[in-house]
Amino acid sequence: MPADNTVEGLDRLDRETVDHRFKALPPDAEGLTVGELAAQRRNLFTGGFTTPVLALSAESLEHNLALLETYAERHGLAFAPHGKTSMSPQLFARQLERGAWGITAAVPHQLRVYRAHGIRRVFLANELVDAVALRWLAGELERDPDFRFICYVDSVRGVQLMDEALRGAARPVEVVVELGAGEGARTGARSEADCTAVADAVADAATLRLVGVAGYEGEVPDATSERVRAWLHRLVSLAVSFDKDGRFADTDEIVVSAGGSAWFDTVAEVFAELPELSRPVLKLLRSGAYVSHDDGHYRHLTPFNRVPEEGALEPAFRLWAQVVSRPTGQQAFANAGKRDAAYDLDLPVAQVVRDARDGSVRPAAGITVTGLSDQHAWLRTDEEADLEVGDWVGMGLSHPCTSFDKWQLIPVAEADGTVTDYVRTFF
Amino acid sequence: MPADNTVEGLDRLDRETVDHRFKALPPDAEGLTVGELAAQRRNLFTGGFTTPVLALSAESLEHNLALLETYAERHGLAFAPHGKTSMSPQLFARQLERGAWGITAAVPHQLRVYRAHGIRRVFLANELVDAVALRWLAGELERDPDFRFICYVDSVRGVQLMDEALRGAARPVEVVVELGAGEGARTGARSEADCTAVADAVADAATLRLVGVAGYEGEVPDATSERVRAWLHRLVSLAVSFDKDGRFADTDEIVVSAGGSAWFDTVAEVFAELPELSRPVLKLLRSGAYVSHDDGHYRHLTPFNRVPEEGALEPAFRLWAQVVSRPTGQQAFANAGKRDAAYDLDLPVAQVVRDARDGSVRPAAGITVTGLSDQHAWLRTDEEADLEVGDWVGMGLSHPCTSFDKWQLIPVAEADGTVTDYVRTFF
Repeated sequence: MPADNTVEGLDRLDRETVDHRFKALPPDAEGLTVGELAAQRRNLFTGGFTTPVLALSAESLEHNLALLETYAERHGLAFAPHGKTSMSPQLFARQLERGAWGITAAVPHQLRVYRAHGIRRVFLANELVDAVALRWLAGELERDPDFRFICYVDSVRGVQLMDEALRGAARPVEVVVELGAGEGARTGARSEADCTAVADAVADAATLRLVGVAGYEGEVPDATSERVRAWLHRLVSLAVSFDKDGRFADTDEIVVSAGGSAWFDTVAEVFAELPELSRPVLKLLRSGAYVSHDDGHYRHLTPFNRVPEEGALEPAFRLWAQVVSRPTGQQAFANAGKRDAAYDLDLPVAQVVRDARDGSVRPAAGITVTGLSDQHAWLRTDEEADLEVGDWVGMGLSHPCTSFDKWQLIPVAEADGTVTDYVRTFF
Repeated sequence: MPADNTVEGLDRLDRETVDHRFKALPPDAEGLTVGELAAQRRNLFTGGFTTPVLALSAESLEHNLALLETYAERHGLAFAPHGKTSMSPQLFARQLERGAWGITAAVPHQLRVYRAHGIRRVFLANELVDAVALRWLAGELERDPDFRFICYVDSVRGVQLMDEALRGAARPVEVVVELGAGEGARTGARSEADCTAVADAVADAATLRLVGVAGYEGEVPDATSERVRAWLHRLVSLAVSFDKDGRFADTDEIVVSAGGSAWFDTVAEVFAELPELSRPVLKLLRSGAYVSHDDGHYRHLTPFNRVPEEGALEPAFRLWAQVVSRPTGQQAFANAGKRDAAYDLDLPVAQVVRDARDGSVRPAAGITVTGLSDQHAWLRTDEEADLEVGDWVGMGLSHPCTSFDKWQLIPVAEADGTVTDYVRTFF
């Protein structure tokens, strides 16, 4: 890891004031700095936190960070974890400490957050045709010679818009041609011919430099290992063909990138077969959801289900909400809703109940989350359910991206409830 | 309006620094204060904002604020708009300037935001059994004799938990018994007998004072005007019966509250029939979504569809996203997704296209939003669609609560695009 691959401004985050901006933090900590509160090592259950409160498991976070570092190393992949998942500089720092090449972004706002925290290498896995954002980017590239930035291009018109906006820029912007993941998939040129036309346009644009090819296998329609593998072979062949045609003459390194959180095993497998090219290849994996993993969508989709011998991610989130109403034996309501929990892919799952009276924790038997209002969770309870007003319900979540984005400061708690750290997010 | 019914700390919000925390703000405004940026009266389209950007219409906001003020006055209703919708102190200030009695909240975190901005009257339309939050509340009540707080109670156990947590408090907490909106509805005691048991428990709790009854007609199962009216009659009858039984002996004013954004016409009608009680009655309406209104859910549900002679709300939000990819004649992708737009009730609707070349605006003919990824909108386009990479698509949203909560600082723009103000939110 190069010494400059670090995150700046973490001390500034430590010096932020604990106040009404941050949900669930102890009211009696008002006015402390976040760093001072962390140093108090309060308990999540007895330390004055209010409900609902989302917590990250310190142990599971550490486990997941280590696992993907090892995985990428073992498979000869560089790693630019997608930062849109957490948008948390503290987690970016831990990812970079564990050898990440850089951080992936989706939109210019995320790039601004990264640059505000001194991140030196950014892969923007998206087209960028916003003239204002491009001019700001050109300024960042000029100001900081160590800043490396790569983004997608997938249309001739997009290349032309970039070139217009960047006219006069001090340094060219590095781009990779995005190959779409199939008919009906998301962004990306649909055919090799389209990709070639885009690459031709890049060659004509003095402000841009072609450095590779990329795409997102997560959008392969009706994805199976075979279909994903077939698309990845197309991507790799595109790199080979562009290289043969001398399209990478202006770069020292060829970038080939793919890899969300559902198919990185297949990415590793196909990228391992990449033939030697005219220049060293940066095989860049971009998985982001692994950092917290989840108890729903990614629990089902994780590649580690197919390669259990390589490890297993651990769900790191638990959302604690308090039962505020128990109008009948079949219904209960907890005080967390759409403002607090991911709900786009699956509803939260009730896992445990912490008794209001004695703090004991029992399995959430007979308790099902059936819906979310803005500020309430609807719980269906059967005769097995032991649940009363005041109890805390611990819930697992599905989809890290839409869990992180509902909390601006997230306590990181050890297994016994000791909160050792706070993770700031910028959405 | 009492002189003390104001919001504090708006100058502090004006002095916040424009930086990476706030999506879409002009990069070249970095380091200005929000107040300085507002004074520049930049144009939303040409003033350096980046995409995606959510904007509020200055004119529609003003119209909606005025309309509900008039509506409440005309029907003899006090108004505590639900603040969970916007969580914006600047909008709370405008609601209070327009005669609102106070602001409604759903959870203790919202109450903390309100108190940090000096809001004097808060109706918490929820149960509150969190001991930490209750002790903090007791401190606020002791510290500020002008702070008035009312919340729901719907269970004997809830009353007991409140009483335990509040033991020794300087002032009693005012509570209203919540009558559930029917079998299978959300919170609230299901029967009049249950309500009476809860009221008995309150009478036994020295730390609480019963001041009324309340509920939320928006959760009446299979709601129709008739069913909502029937439930409201039950609520009013409960107030009459409690009053006859002398249960309001300790209060100067009886509170009867209902009213979300779908049935306030029926609430006004039934509350108008309330017979004289032993004390003056505060008939408290709590609608919140009206402030921005929307182009989906509430457009269909608004009571003004039934009483057009009383006015019409205007949708105030427009989300602008930029087309970044146009891989086929049938598909396009814009750079706003689940991080930027409400998606819980309906998808955004493409309304207009702003041409990247000349800034002209045309109807979004033949363009349909078919899905949202985290950071992309999927657009289906037919032969009628005139759409290219770089164009901005203006979209209408459905559900104010899940639109506001994705933006921490929202430009307020006049019809010609001049941004006159910025609305801060605290979620």
